Amino acid sequence: MTQLLKNQDCGTLSKANVGQTVILNGWVQRRRDLGGVLFIDLRDRSGIVQIVFNPEFSGEAHGIADRARNEYVLAVRGTIVERDAETVNANLPTGEIEVRVTEIEILNAAKNPPFFIEDGIEIDESLRLKYRYLDLRRPEMQRTLQLRSKAAKIFRDYLDENGFIEVETPILTKSSPEGARDYLVPSRVHPGEFFALPQSPQIYKQLLMVSGLERYYQIARCFRDEDLRADRQPEFTQVDIETSFLSQDQLLETMETLSARLFRETIGVEIPTPFQRISYADAMGKYGSDKPDLRFGLELKDVSDIVANSGVQVFNTVVSKGGQVKALNAKGCGVWSRKEIDDLGSFASRYGAKGLAWITYKDGELKGPIVKFFNESELELLKERLEAEEGDLLLFSADSKKVVADVLGNLRLKIGKQLGLIDESKFKFAWVVDFPLLSYDDEAKRYVAEHHPFTRPKDEDLHFFDTDPGQIRAQAYDLVLNGYEVGGGSMRIFQREVQEKMFAALGFSEETANDKFGYLLEAFEYGTPPHGGMAFGFDRLVMLLTGRTNLRETIAFPKTASATDLLMNAPAEVEDNQLEQLSIRVAKKPPVSKA
Amino acid sequence: MTQLLKNQDCGTLSKANVGQTVILNGWVQRRRDLGGVLFIDLRDRSGIVQIVFNPEFSGEAHGIADRARNEYVLAVRGTIVERDAETVNANLPTGEIEVRVTEIEILNAAKNPPFFIEDGIEIDESLRLKYRYLDLRRPEMQRTLQLRSKAAKIFRDYLDENGFIEVETPILTKSSPEGARDYLVPSRVHPGEFFALPQSPQIYKQLLMVSGLERYYQIARCFRDEDLRADRQPEFTQVDIETSFLSQDQLLETMETLSARLFRETIGVEIPTPFQRISYADAMGKYGSDKPDLRFGLELKDVSDIVANSGVQVFNTVVSKGGQVKALNAKGCGVWSRKEIDDLGSFASRYGAKGLAWITYKDGELKGPIVKFFNESELELLKERLEAEEGDLLLFSADSKKVVADVLGNLRLKIGKQLGLIDESKFKFAWVVDFPLLSYDDEAKRYVAEHHPFTRPKDEDLHFFDTDPGQIRAQAYDLVLNGYEVGGGSMRIFQREVQEKMFAALGFSEETANDKFGYLLEAFEYGTPPHGGMAFGFDRLVMLLTGRTNLRETIAFPKTASATDLLMNAPAEVEDNQLEQLSIRVAKKPPVSKA
Repeated sequence: MTQLLKNQDCGTLSKANVGQTVILNGWVQRRRDLGGVLFIDLRDRSGIVQIVFNPEFSGEAHGIADRARNEYVLAVRGTIVERDAETVNANLPTGEIEVRVTEIEILNAAKNPPFFIEDGIEIDESLRLKYRYLDLRRPEMQRTLQLRSKAAKIFRDYLDENGFIEVETPILTKSSPEGARDYLVPSRVHPGEFFALPQSPQIYKQLLMVSGLERYYQIARCFRDEDLRADRQPEFTQVDIETSFLSQDQLLETMETLSARLFRETIGVEIPTPFQRISYADAMGKYGSDKPDLRFGLELKDVSDIVANSGVQVFNTVVSKGGQVKALNAKGCGVWSRKEIDDLGSFASRYGAKGLAWITYKDGELKGPIVKFFNESELELLKERLEAEEGDLLLFSADSKKVVADVLGNLRLKIGKQLGLIDESKFKFAWVVDFPLLSYDDEAKRYVAEHHPFTRPKDEDLHFFDTDPGQIRAQAYDLVLNGYEVGGGSMRIFQREVQEKMFAALGFSEETANDKFGYLLEAFEYGTPPHGGMAFGFDRLVMLLTGRTNLRETIAFPKTASATDLLMNAPAEVEDNQLEQLSIRVAKKPPVSKA
Repeated sequence: MTQLLKNQDCGTLSKANVGQTVILNGWVQRRRDLGGVLFIDLRDRSGIVQIVFNPEFSGEAHGIADRARNEYVLAVRGTIVERDAETVNANLPTGEIEVRVTEIEILNAAKNPPFFIEDGIEIDESLRLKYRYLDLRRPEMQRTLQLRSKAAKIFRDYLDENGFIEVETPILTKSSPEGARDYLVPSRVHPGEFFALPQSPQIYKQLLMVSGLERYYQIARCFRDEDLRADRQPEFTQVDIETSFLSQDQLLETMETLSARLFRETIGVEIPTPFQRISYADAMGKYGSDKPDLRFGLELKDVSDIVANSGVQVFNTVVSKGGQVKALNAKGCGVWSRKEIDDLGSFASRYGAKGLAWITYKDGELKGPIVKFFNESELELLKERLEAEEGDLLLFSADSKKVVADVLGNLRLKIGKQLGLIDESKFKFAWVVDFPLLSYDDEAKRYVAEHHPFTRPKDEDLHFFDTDPGQIRAQAYDLVLNGYEVGGGSMRIFQREVQEKMFAALGFSEETANDKFGYLLEAFEYGTPPHGGMAFGFDRLVMLLTGRTNLRETIAFPKTASATDLLMNAPAEVEDNQLEQLSIRVAKKPPVSKA
């Protein structure tokens, strides 16, 4: 084992160190042989410094260094010297100095890596994931992991200072009766029985409130066996929080201070508090989304009243059937070509639009295929409602509330981006509040919980349980940032009579409720405090903090969209005796019928 | 929802608060009705305070309070008043004051709990685990959870300050080819394939060193599907650490400072550093254990040389066959009755002793059944070697090295406890170092790795690979505390030629090695730095910090010895369609043969 163990970091050296003798350890970033003098950029996690081998300093060191290639691991002893003015590298934090090496040891050799260890490489992601240990050497990945670590520290410090107690809850737990698909773990000791990996610590954290812990947190690993989208992983991390004896406002304020501190201390961005609060109804109405990107306007306007009796047949029909007609004013897009507008139509159809009607404001008047079906006063009202001006493009969607929101919400984002309305340097937080408690499931022909069956209704809406449960708003809130949901939670039901009304609204018999949530309901009978909480999506927050658009970039060892670990090659087949011990078999496809 | 949300904690009130009006929320610990005046001990996580209801302060409040029973959740507004001298409760930190309540709300009722919410209850543990949310209300459990949270914070703060980066590694990973039994997770997307839950993040943390992260840590959940002992849980927590470019000494020093800080900042105990370092050979030789309790002496002595040619046939035989005879001087136990000594014999037999020879030093001479088989000079040598004095009891074990160590090591602990030699207030840390690298597996007829196949041999022992691999000592170390292993780790092999020698010693062909560890071996070819690390057993440390003897007391929601969660009732059967989606079936017992 070498005696040359580092006493300095490469990337931190500067003119202040000139004259010092240091020991550095690191990887060869690149080497250049300039007529007998050898320059190596030596890289460690702190950065890069130039080290110089000259037979004049040490013939032996120069001889050894000559064998070094990219990604070799070196240990060197040398003296810091100032560079000549003309050789200063202004692009490098250590660019004013270099290290004259008198002693070197090659700690390890390296094969030529399958891609360069540098930022901004454009290679197939699967190659990066297979060689993740090399991918993580790249400075941008190192910075991401360091920021992630720091972000976790900031969450913990803040929560600790505010009296939250970190509690670890089980990973081997029970399959949950509602919610997404569970990962299961066969029990060896209890053949035929299974643990499930938790989708969240929800039930445990509520039980901790029953325990009188008052303030709990955990940076918790959660699991969902879903078909993955770009921003989903089979295992993900959430900052999980629950409190007792706090009002919703008190909780949200605490979380705002926490979020602002996170941004200040990681990336130096000041986030003003309090955050905007926008009701679910307003968010859907104005932005067509329950996670609106509030960095720009371009709000949707309901024009149902204006167009209901126009000559546009589809508008009339939709409105008369209880649907909606809404419009978006794409400012200045009146000059777009027919093809560009048609492209918007195909984009809209992806979100369920059957068509996309449009009007331009050109040469002082409204133009387009549908204009002739309106009378003068209707056109005037439209102009006024949509604040239409010369050069604008008005886009109309007529459909069910949900489809209109989807279509125009997504068009709004697309056009906002296209018009450069989004200041990418901005972080715009908001709470979306007053979510509906229940939604009607047409298939199951009953109400289902929008959040979960323990979400507390707003006090002033309790009376709707008896008349119109769909009207009840929940004490539930999502934290949105730049169009992403970065957190969410609710106040929980803690009173038996409210819980019973909730179950009745969900169509659960007492028996069903006990069957599904028996232990929790029993716990609730032993003195449950008023409580509520939330969870932050940690991976997604780190993604936004680092300016990434892919969750995999924020996770050291992520899985692919088909839930595969390309580095370890997992999942994989296991030995028969492992399955035998677990009393399970791989199910073969049923034999082909001979009939 | 109540407007009476707490602005003070019950347990923190004192004479300094007299005259203040406060709002408190908490649970009824007990109530006493003293002739129309009602006294309630109100408990929250901070402690207890006495609140008083008197119709003179508020008739309404008194009326409502009268309905409250144990574990009801109350919200009260009241004024802090000093108690009369004769009613001061010196046992209660808040015992000098009480709260005169003018307003009360019963936030929730409670059924009578199945056990009292107080420390030191003696009830069946399974009842406590079924009602864990009530068990956790007990002050000693609250203190334990709070200390555990604080301990995690101290680990993290220290590691963060010292440049360690927290990285989360996957829970859904690959079944490991060596080691304990894995928990498996069937993959839905890849039928017939399985993830495994990690037994430790070992391979990932070594890959992070290949990534150039230099210093990594994680408070990591680990899983082992083993049959459980009192101090094992199917899922457990370790503080997992790995470093590059550090010597073993540098690493151990860092960990000592960390351990000392942990004890100082949690329980106020100063642990002197550096810790004692004792070789594996010495630990086994002197204490018969690789995790010796060093709070007391009572060392074992090898007397093989003295007794080898005595008239005690079994001693002669054992020594001639390469075994050992060792002895323990139980100071002052010469006065024990024959029955007490016989009990030691049955105790010893649990650890494999075929018998337990003994000699007492009484009335100036050695006495006992075997004395007659020694000559005078042998007896003199024994006295001298064992420092025998009047009143002592000498216990002899003759067997293989392993059995002798087990028998006398455990006798030493038993007698040490019995004689009160152990200062229970003391915390005696030590490193056990220089573990053997390999041990010979008589069944497999090959060497197996004592730690794991990547443990680095001591440089000066490398030559034994060619001559006597069993002699090689590893750069491996365990951290022991009061007879418990609270941590352990090693420097890792990072050089290809050493790794090849290790695999050869283990009898692995190149193919086998690649098959078992292919991705790691490949990673090692791309510039691996010298690295090493360790893991602290977090649950066990918390157990020792809180003076407990059962790991379950340190975990919020532990599992029983049969790996069951009594609260959630997990594991449990799942729905058929869940298994279908995972392409697995529960294996039925094979049908009884008809032959």
